[in-house]
Amino acid sequence: MNSALDDLTATSSNSDPAPHGAPSANDRTFGPFRFEVIGIDLAGGARHGRMTTGHGRVETPAFMPVGTQASVKTLLPQEVRATGAQIILANTYHLMLRPGLETLVAAGGLHRFMGWDGPILTDSGGFQIFSLAGNARVREHGVTFRSHIDGSHRELTPEKAVGLQLGWGSDIVMALDHLVGLPADPTSVRDATDRTHRWLARCADAFADAGGEERAALFGICQGGMDPELRRESAAVIASAEVAGSAIGGLSVGEPKPVMAEILETVAEILPFDKPRYLMGVGSPEDLWMGVARGVDLFDCVLPTRLARNGALFTAEGRVNIKQRRFADVHGPLEAECDCDTCTRFSAAYIHHLFRAGEILGLRLASIHNLRFLANQIEVIRRAIEQNTFASAHASFLARYRPVERTPNA
Amino acid sequence: MNSALDDLTATSSNSDPAPHGAPSANDRTFGPFRFEVIGIDLAGGARHGRMTTGHGRVETPAFMPVGTQASVKTLLPQEVRATGAQIILANTYHLMLRPGLETLVAAGGLHRFMGWDGPILTDSGGFQIFSLAGNARVREHGVTFRSHIDGSHRELTPEKAVGLQLGWGSDIVMALDHLVGLPADPTSVRDATDRTHRWLARCADAFADAGGEERAALFGICQGGMDPELRRESAAVIASAEVAGSAIGGLSVGEPKPVMAEILETVAEILPFDKPRYLMGVGSPEDLWMGVARGVDLFDCVLPTRLARNGALFTAEGRVNIKQRRFADVHGPLEAECDCDTCTRFSAAYIHHLFRAGEILGLRLASIHNLRFLANQIEVIRRAIEQNTFASAHASFLARYRPVERTPNA
Repeated sequence: MNSALDDLTATSSNSDPAPHGAPSANDRTFGPFRFEVIGIDLAGGARHGRMTTGHGRVETPAFMPVGTQASVKTLLPQEVRATGAQIILANTYHLMLRPGLETLVAAGGLHRFMGWDGPILTDSGGFQIFSLAGNARVREHGVTFRSHIDGSHRELTPEKAVGLQLGWGSDIVMALDHLVGLPADPTSVRDATDRTHRWLARCADAFADAGGEERAALFGICQGGMDPELRRESAAVIASAEVAGSAIGGLSVGEPKPVMAEILETVAEILPFDKPRYLMGVGSPEDLWMGVARGVDLFDCVLPTRLARNGALFTAEGRVNIKQRRFADVHGPLEAECDCDTCTRFSAAYIHHLFRAGEILGLRLASIHNLRFLANQIEVIRRAIEQNTFASAHASFLARYRPVERTPNA
Repeated sequence: MNSALDDLTATSSNSDPAPHGAPSANDRTFGPFRFEVIGIDLAGGARHGRMTTGHGRVETPAFMPVGTQASVKTLLPQEVRATGAQIILANTYHLMLRPGLETLVAAGGLHRFMGWDGPILTDSGGFQIFSLAGNARVREHGVTFRSHIDGSHRELTPEKAVGLQLGWGSDIVMALDHLVGLPADPTSVRDATDRTHRWLARCADAFADAGGEERAALFGICQGGMDPELRRESAAVIASAEVAGSAIGGLSVGEPKPVMAEILETVAEILPFDKPRYLMGVGSPEDLWMGVARGVDLFDCVLPTRLARNGALFTAEGRVNIKQRRFADVHGPLEAECDCDTCTRFSAAYIHHLFRAGEILGLRLASIHNLRFLANQIEVIRRAIEQNTFASAHASFLARYRPVERTPNA
């Protein structure tokens, strides 16, 4: 327990927004779901917490590997677990199309189907509909689109998004939100943000009607584009909603990193202190540190696994591409300090060879390394928060790690 | 110990070829390498044996999974081991081109490079040169060809084939042979077979000169196409050569199955009883049974892993394609009686989903199942030999298993 926490807990009974976030508008419990902040960094907003779900506990900050189609690409559940991951994410858009709710229910739920017995968070499907499906058309009732698999006409509504996620047994259910891409005119962003709030109310009703809180938790999503005022307004709506957690959507969509940081600071002041904060779709090493510094508890991103399949591996100095000739005769591990199941068993030269030869095992070894790298960052971060050394640990990370400016294919 | 063995051991001191094979022409030992027949089926030629190498023991009959490019496709060494495999095969043609001898030596050898600490048999490279490389041209000195990777001009000679395999530390080194594909005119087959014999003598010299027997075993390869007379002649050459084992090459190249069976019977009479017999490139479940019935001890084939990656899975009734719609809602294992790490943990519906969704994990789960299926067949075979019930076990297998007539992509 961090002494700063007592200060903040005291502060949070004040009606002014605390620097680390506002108190929760309600003290309703959410079935098996619990969240407690067990430590914060004295100098900033970084939090160390514990989230409890019907499928076990999650230490926060946490990075959630993405199991898009009920599989964290190339890996077995036990391998994902071995990287240090305690919770994974799966995509509602993909799962609703294939294998579909009916099959997942018949299988005994998503956990049993894919063999992952830890917590699962599912997104609402909105993001992929706008990025992947064809002919997405938003009406107040919901969004219609064409499946990218077979072109069939489909519809997703707030009620259906909740029904699907509860149906296959997600531990954390995301409300359906309306996203607009960049560049976006202010009217569209305002319109989408307002709709996101109305849809959240419908999601909360659907969740309550289905008795969702007995087995899961509903998170609302803050939108508002890059407009600080709209973001504040949206954060206030999420803060006052009957939800168990606050997600921050619509970021990491191509905006400059300082803009993302500023938006995070803006909303962190308003979002409830005692609920987990989830920054959606963010997962580069440098962004984890940046997000945690601004009070974020949860992250997810395809980045580590997607980069891995392209041969781009994280190291303490930055990303390297294992396909480069210079690794052909590195007969020690890629990173001597890395404790992942790849670096402890195989040489950089072997991974290089597997990639050059087009062997699938290479994709596996790289995925394991990248996920473990992020989990290790998270562990360093948690420890630093406990020890009140977050700022200096962050500085040490930045002094060594050289981020990639642009992220192709991610 | 099978009582029939004593009879046969007695018989093998007779100068006539025994029904189960001839005695070895020499009693030279081969360094760490040992082979002993510890049981044979009374009614036929099926043998149960034990092969010892510098990297451990192998119970025979044995199926060797193929790690073409220093990786059994999609799998980790420990997963290959868990299927029941005790020895694997790797391809000299591939390894000489990529990563190359120099890298493998710098890595501390092939075993360390790929993380497999059990025995490794490598082929001589001949088969792939004739099937995969460009412009293969055979002269007495050796064969020149162009790399399928970068088009570079390369040469492989008997001496070089042995040097490569010893160089990266193979436990079993195959002599370079000259293959001709089907259809082949008798003159070409005769010519290639004679050359194979001359090359074997050169391989044996190179092996001896390099002190190979201190750390490995050399196998000769019987050729002779589909001509029984030439096969007999070739088998006699192999039988009298200073080699530790006898391979049977040039089969399973498109000939009718009864022809393969007949050739096997022909050569089994001549090949030494007390040396292991390796039927190259054969690995369908029905062919394992057929080969063992004719005295074969070792098999290798890409079939189980290649089929797996196409979604074709072995079952006791024959192959099925997991992509078929009928598996979409099979929420139990593909085979209730299967003890593989796939069937004990995942449903047929999940594997089906992974294949439909293009997830790499599906290829892994299928590969594990198919390799375990063959290992289980081998275990049933070994037990049947021990119990003198091979013929009835073979009949039971055939009564239930429906072979595929043609093997696309295999």
